[in-house]
Amino acid sequence: MLNVVVIGGDACGASAASTVKRSLRDEANVIVLERQSWTSYAACGIPYWIAGQTDGPDALVARSPEAHRANGLDMRTGWEATAIDPVARTVTARELASGTDHVLPFDHLVIATGASPVRPPIPGLDLPGVHGVQTLDDGSAIMESLADDVQRAVIIGAGYIGIEMAEAMCDRGVATTVVDQAPQPMTTMDPDMGALISEAMGKMGIAYQGGSPVQAIESGPDGRVARVVTGEGSFDADIVLIGLGVRPNAGLAQAAGLPLGDRGGIVTDDHMQVQGHDGIWAGGDCVEVVDRPTGRRLHVALGTHANKHGRVIGTNITGGDLVFPGVVGTAVSKICALEVGRVGLREAEARDLGLDVVSGTIRASTKAHYLRDAGPIHVKVIAERGTGRLLGCQIVGQPGSGKRIDVAATAIWNGMTVEDVTSLDLAYAPPFSPVWDPVQIATRKVAGMV
Amino acid sequence: MLNVVVIGGDACGASAASTVKRSLRDEANVIVLERQSWTSYAACGIPYWIAGQTDGPDALVARSPEAHRANGLDMRTGWEATAIDPVARTVTARELASGTDHVLPFDHLVIATGASPVRPPIPGLDLPGVHGVQTLDDGSAIMESLADDVQRAVIIGAGYIGIEMAEAMCDRGVATTVVDQAPQPMTTMDPDMGALISEAMGKMGIAYQGGSPVQAIESGPDGRVARVVTGEGSFDADIVLIGLGVRPNAGLAQAAGLPLGDRGGIVTDDHMQVQGHDGIWAGGDCVEVVDRPTGRRLHVALGTHANKHGRVIGTNITGGDLVFPGVVGTAVSKICALEVGRVGLREAEARDLGLDVVSGTIRASTKAHYLRDAGPIHVKVIAERGTGRLLGCQIVGQPGSGKRIDVAATAIWNGMTVEDVTSLDLAYAPPFSPVWDPVQIATRKVAGMV
Repeated sequence: MLNVVVIGGDACGASAASTVKRSLRDEANVIVLERQSWTSYAACGIPYWIAGQTDGPDALVARSPEAHRANGLDMRTGWEATAIDPVARTVTARELASGTDHVLPFDHLVIATGASPVRPPIPGLDLPGVHGVQTLDDGSAIMESLADDVQRAVIIGAGYIGIEMAEAMCDRGVATTVVDQAPQPMTTMDPDMGALISEAMGKMGIAYQGGSPVQAIESGPDGRVARVVTGEGSFDADIVLIGLGVRPNAGLAQAAGLPLGDRGGIVTDDHMQVQGHDGIWAGGDCVEVVDRPTGRRLHVALGTHANKHGRVIGTNITGGDLVFPGVVGTAVSKICALEVGRVGLREAEARDLGLDVVSGTIRASTKAHYLRDAGPIHVKVIAERGTGRLLGCQIVGQPGSGKRIDVAATAIWNGMTVEDVTSLDLAYAPPFSPVWDPVQIATRKVAGMV
Repeated sequence: MLNVVVIGGDACGASAASTVKRSLRDEANVIVLERQSWTSYAACGIPYWIAGQTDGPDALVARSPEAHRANGLDMRTGWEATAIDPVARTVTARELASGTDHVLPFDHLVIATGASPVRPPIPGLDLPGVHGVQTLDDGSAIMESLADDVQRAVIIGAGYIGIEMAEAMCDRGVATTVVDQAPQPMTTMDPDMGALISEAMGKMGIAYQGGSPVQAIESGPDGRVARVVTGEGSFDADIVLIGLGVRPNAGLAQAAGLPLGDRGGIVTDDHMQVQGHDGIWAGGDCVEVVDRPTGRRLHVALGTHANKHGRVIGTNITGGDLVFPGVVGTAVSKICALEVGRVGLREAEARDLGLDVVSGTIRASTKAHYLRDAGPIHVKVIAERGTGRLLGCQIVGQPGSGKRIDVAATAIWNGMTVEDVTSLDLAYAPPFSPVWDPVQIATRKVAGMV
């Protein structure tokens, strides 16, 4: 009997546990420790629940604790791991309801402790009406706040979650201001592309106030949140949503002497085994991943990576040989009718890394220009001078724009040049693309500059 | 002064000519011979003109003869090339209005004579109300026919043009039957995926009658078309549209002793120079192209290839060094809300080539499953047993499905395995994809089978 203990019952943990159980059945005892009451839920779906595009919270649960148990997992919700002993090969876990501690031996340990929202020391962060957007309980709390008369929202942070919550507030008819210390929203994009986003947000009636961090969140006479104060001014708010990114939950691993990287995540090899620790695996939002084009270790909290990690870990525990070959920094988001995609290095980032870069931006249409429902799409391409190697791509445009980033992601993954991409056999028909695909119009332009 | 003669003023020809002129300006005399009155027009836009999604025919002209002339091209519309002398390096061309022949010397010749619709010897093919869908004049003739009381359309041929015209008729409220000799529509797809298409067509109210070739097109008492007769029955029609594919216009090249391939297209090297003939170039719908995964020469008439050929030829004439590295058989189409994409080898085709193949098909959703506007998407993946090399991919699904084929196209282009594709860093956010991209759900399934 193989004893497998998994810490964390969300994307990576539940996926690894299920993979092991499906493969080994009665030959594996798989315990999953999850301190919350939910398992396998889509945190990234919360903005769409708030926007009314799905029901919640149950609809966001891909697999409930009961379903996991029916599949043979020893799923222990309300249990929190408190210590790992990598030498004795045990995990100590507390049953939160009773406070009882248990020591669980393992042959294999999977650390999938996720990430926690960044909470800077802003006065007023705990006021009623101020919410994070991380757990299903956060989602329920936001829905409760919105049941009151909410006219104005302020969103702190203009990254993916901030942008998506701005869309949700907009969909609900709430006047929305997004504040961030960066001059333009979405700092994963170059400033010129970020400017397109803030311009489009303005046209949607979503105000963007960048350039200054939040100084305080203040309450009104009723004790609830009333305004957000930044160096740029004071912004009235009946609700405040925090989207300032996340940090890996790696404290448990660190206390056990497991290696952490510069970004605070657990360091694994490409099989997702913790470096130097046979049979101890880690994946999901608590680990660092390798950025393929540069070899740097990054922290990228995304459910899609976490699920892949879970598959790799579960397969490797059961005698398989899978690797997670790294990431290329692909992301996509939307705010109302505006779609945003990015991959690879930003222009300034590439220069900071000492690369000699050329870049070009084009404006094309999402479909053949003569179709009435064709919309504008902007594509920026960043390449290495001389070699022409594609380094990065950013897209901002109307519906049909965002997922085009996958072509650039697959190209960067394979080390293609901008000329290679220009030659690619991409799908063409008038309702899908101009006769030159917009990504190729951009690589063609940059191919003439390298 | 470099004398460049280009035969054909559409995608490839106009693009090659423009590239040369833009580079060499007064140092090149660029004559373009175009027997029609239109240049640089989007034949693939005709179905959308008929559907009312764009104006026509002017909206479908990317660049008029006048615009080309303003750019310095000697654009001779109404001129038809009648002979090429590759030794004397001359082209004989007839001014159609006057019947005068001219002999034009060239340093470089670009053959971009396009393709012509297949017209099998069916009785009644010339009846009033029977139309091809190739030229802007065809489009005008269809619009004239539709100005009458048109209740029922029969479309002969269930390839891309046939399917797109079925959508156009459907959009106009015309009861439509598509007939084809193949058992299911779109023989570029495997039968199981084709069956999904015909099922969806049925739900849209578009009848599909396959399994028998057309025997005759018959007229009514007014002398106009009245019905189409196949082995499966007789189908009443007020209008008949022909979409039976095209054949390369390579007669002129053949008469000049230039090499043709098995598919009837001109054979060039990867620089698009006609094999064995320095300074004679060919591209667009009149040439064969190399299928990268198999090395076979195919005839693939697509505007996107033609434009790329034009860029390669124009650049190479002016001293550049570009190649057209071939195709992977990517195509996309839609019929109302159903999107269809394909790339690479069909399953049976791969077996016919002697490959040991595995395949798998999955059904997923276009977006996170919990979003109300998520729709079904079916993805079939074909891979080589043992190596796991991705050989083909086919997609049938709701909006957001079709262009996902580009990931598979880029993967096949780079020789990736199904496990490689499963690891790819593709863009994820709930409005764009489930947490496992549908293409990766399919490659993951097949990766477990190779």
